[in-house]
Amino acid sequence: MDDCVFCKIVSNDIPSYKVYEDERSLAFLDINPVNIGHTLVIPKEHHADLSDTPPPLLAHLVGVVQKIAPTVAASVNAEGFNLCMNNGQDAGQVIFHAHLHIIPRFPDDGHSLWSGRSIEEEELSKTADAIRKEFLV
Amino acid sequence: MDDCVFCKIVSNDIPSYKVYEDERSLAFLDINPVNIGHTLVIPKEHHADLSDTPPPLLAHLVGVVQKIAPTVAASVNAEGFNLCMNNGQDAGQVIFHAHLHIIPRFPDDGHSLWSGRSIEEEELSKTADAIRKEFLV
Repeated sequence: MDDCVFCKIVSNDIPSYKVYEDERSLAFLDINPVNIGHTLVIPKEHHADLSDTPPPLLAHLVGVVQKIAPTVAASVNAEGFNLCMNNGQDAGQVIFHAHLHIIPRFPDDGHSLWSGRSIEEEELSKTADAIRKEFLV
Repeated sequence: MDDCVFCKIVSNDIPSYKVYEDERSLAFLDINPVNIGHTLVIPKEHHADLSDTPPPLLAHLVGVVQKIAPTVAASVNAEGFNLCMNNGQDAGQVIFHAHLHIIPRFPDDGHSLWSGRSIEEEELSKTADAIRKEFLV
């Protein structure tokens, strides 16, 4: 897409710190990282988000994450990493070209992904019913 | 595994709010959710994390996420969702049975996944070199 930053990175019209590339995917460093080594894995084809990405391509992208994430983490001496994908504006997606974040993590790095909250059993039960009626008989 | 909470959920020795199930995977509500509808997708087989999960099974799990996440989000009237997987203790993984989080998100729900930071180009460049030497020629 003409106005997509990630498409311009794929076409080399915008420079990036590439770390991995194959026919269908590209991985490069996030220039505003949570931690050093924070890497984005994207499809070369433009797809807006998870739902918009063809399943075989999505499987390929996750395979790339599985292949490179241990090396990404090891390169910055991290022993753990978060895999994250934000889908939709309400979920913090800023660039609408599907991308998976690999975020190397360190002990006491001050980054708290989230804190869960307590919730009433009735609300859990009602919500589960609403979802599973689409999938379970 | 005998002492794994998620294996016990798979075997129904511990109850859960199931929302989806097939031969290889199970999805159920997180009982300490970030937001209502927060769902975990797990393999029925015990695998500790991303690296430990066989690639075809991982592809299947991500396919399940792609299939159910829009319904999970819609069931709680959310228009976006985060997909997250924590790998390793330093990354906040608590239960060492691989699991993918689907977190429905709402405008102004007060949940900030992360804030990026500025970083020197030299550090980015050095880090990219260290990673890509394993993958790019």
